[in-house]
Amino acid sequence: MRLFPRTTAWLVLAAPLLTAPAAAQDSGGAQKIDDAQLIERANELFDPIPTDPPELDGNTVTPERVKLGRMLFFDPRLSASHAISCNSCHQMGLGGDDNQPTSIGHGWQRGPRNAPTVFNAVFNSAQFWDGRAEDLEQQAKGPVQASVEMANTPDRAVATLSSMPGYVEQFEAAFPQAEDPVTFDNMAKALEAFQATLLTPNSRFDLYLKGHENALSAKQKRGLEEFMSTGCVGCHNGVNLGGQGYYPFGLIEKPGAEVLPRDDKGRFQVTKTASDNYVFRAAPLRNVAITQPYFHSGKVWSLETAVSLMGISQLGQELSEEEVEEITAFLRSLTGDQPRVEYPVLPESTDATPLPVEFEESPAKR
Amino acid sequence: MRLFPRTTAWLVLAAPLLTAPAAAQDSGGAQKIDDAQLIERANELFDPIPTDPPELDGNTVTPERVKLGRMLFFDPRLSASHAISCNSCHQMGLGGDDNQPTSIGHGWQRGPRNAPTVFNAVFNSAQFWDGRAEDLEQQAKGPVQASVEMANTPDRAVATLSSMPGYVEQFEAAFPQAEDPVTFDNMAKALEAFQATLLTPNSRFDLYLKGHENALSAKQKRGLEEFMSTGCVGCHNGVNLGGQGYYPFGLIEKPGAEVLPRDDKGRFQVTKTASDNYVFRAAPLRNVAITQPYFHSGKVWSLETAVSLMGISQLGQELSEEEVEEITAFLRSLTGDQPRVEYPVLPESTDATPLPVEFEESPAKR
Repeated sequence: MRLFPRTTAWLVLAAPLLTAPAAAQDSGGAQKIDDAQLIERANELFDPIPTDPPELDGNTVTPERVKLGRMLFFDPRLSASHAISCNSCHQMGLGGDDNQPTSIGHGWQRGPRNAPTVFNAVFNSAQFWDGRAEDLEQQAKGPVQASVEMANTPDRAVATLSSMPGYVEQFEAAFPQAEDPVTFDNMAKALEAFQATLLTPNSRFDLYLKGHENALSAKQKRGLEEFMSTGCVGCHNGVNLGGQGYYPFGLIEKPGAEVLPRDDKGRFQVTKTASDNYVFRAAPLRNVAITQPYFHSGKVWSLETAVSLMGISQLGQELSEEEVEEITAFLRSLTGDQPRVEYPVLPESTDATPLPVEFEESPAKR
Repeated sequence: MRLFPRTTAWLVLAAPLLTAPAAAQDSGGAQKIDDAQLIERANELFDPIPTDPPELDGNTVTPERVKLGRMLFFDPRLSASHAISCNSCHQMGLGGDDNQPTSIGHGWQRGPRNAPTVFNAVFNSAQFWDGRAEDLEQQAKGPVQASVEMANTPDRAVATLSSMPGYVEQFEAAFPQAEDPVTFDNMAKALEAFQATLLTPNSRFDLYLKGHENALSAKQKRGLEEFMSTGCVGCHNGVNLGGQGYYPFGLIEKPGAEVLPRDDKGRFQVTKTASDNYVFRAAPLRNVAITQPYFHSGKVWSLETAVSLMGISQLGQELSEEEVEEITAFLRSLTGDQPRVEYPVLPESTDATPLPVEFEESPAKR
């Protein structure tokens, strides 16, 4: 298992990558944009979200795994309390996250970092803000066990799933070769397969990438141009406009402790390497307009404020109000078609299903 | 508004209604069952769940209201924390409730009574365990405001909905005659319209009622016969097998304080009438096998235990183990087709959307 999939190679990216402007423009912004040239440049840096899931490493997106994964994703009985499911913090109707600074978990505890969206997450090179999970399969095992999230144990999760014939059947169908299909690993595989289908294609930006010149407004095109020329694209590139590399938050100037709490050292907590102090995975920007609040601390609610702050902390530039507005307008073009998900009918509990932990020791009157 | 829609007329129903057996049987239970006669008798007491929503009093089930109601049902931003939605306690995948003794609400508080299922709830003569809401429209306003549930205020809920163009459009479409469509009342109407579609037709029992003699097993038929002849049907009749009248829990013998906590006086808290002490609305039994734990206290997890306890407390009879098993088998035939619900894509928050209360006073960096 490759837990640290990428070296932390941020230094080469510190300076703006691209400086050639796509079209002659001044601050008036009224100049003609050369769409063909802008689209060509953009296609060198970004890719549209596909409509179909990608191939997974060590897992297969079969209809049976997706179906099982969908059930697991919505099942609160995977948590110690039987009250929290994956969907509690990664809601299908809210852009794949919960629009909370940090999520509310077991016992109403707040987690330490903002919940990232699960939409398109399969395209990130690693999962979590510090990249501590190589893929969504490894990632899925975290929240189920985290004491501030679902607070469960692998054993209890497997006992819960094994207690329901409805689940056992689904695991058998999803893992037909397995001698013992109901395992914590297979739970994670099914969750990964389901999440690999949570894609948001057809954003305005993707239509533009594909050559539809009218898919973006003039303002959004100027924003795209600035997004590239100011250097945002140094970290935010690829299909997810981020989610690929690790960079210090405050490369040029550290934000205040309110936005960058000094006790969360980010990737340093994974690698124990001094150069990884306050290093985080660059946030993927797909659907960013609907996944506020922003940053790992979730302390900034406005996209404009977030863009402005990034200019200062990462690029050492005070972006003008107009630039912030244009870049933000561009970022709003990254909202794609949201996944249409049917709420799964979950298997019935049985007398063998463990009760919520709070009631485990009580005379249950079974 | 008619807040107390039904007089508390339980006394006339205290004795078993029906004593004529459907077929000659003894405890061996091996006798031939006269299906035609049993079906005829059952049809006098019960009705199948229809596939279409009923007419509502003062509301109309239009596609626009159902669509809006579905969005509202799944939207956690109707709660003070932005973390709790209707679906948190009335989950579409778990029989329309949460399989908790009592629900976990704002600040991880436990509510005072077991969350009833929303499936088929439109057929109940009144809502809540004490019938304090006349219908689902009135009911919908309760949990949004209850301090142990969603802990919101009508004003903040309306401000939240009004802040999102996506919602304003939906309200306009759902209430085309209204001058001011985004109101707390219309929110409740839309929620009622959506819930009126949450029906579970085609249970084995309903097929039997419609003349399919093989829809129930012999054991289930004996259970149905006993359900009628022992007197369960006195309170549990009609389309929902309950949900129509009010009866003292412990009509014959009060259960222990563990199951019937002495500080919850039930309908007395609504009517302040001494005869309503420990009086509750008879639980509707549709999908009862998947909506454990049982009773207003949610203290009993096993359907067998619940049936046995009802025999003693309501009928003054110690049901034999065989009778309990047969009645339970019958009750398991009440699980119908579960609603297929597409998870709604919710409108985007805007800068005007109130933040979760915890963050309302903080410098939000908007």
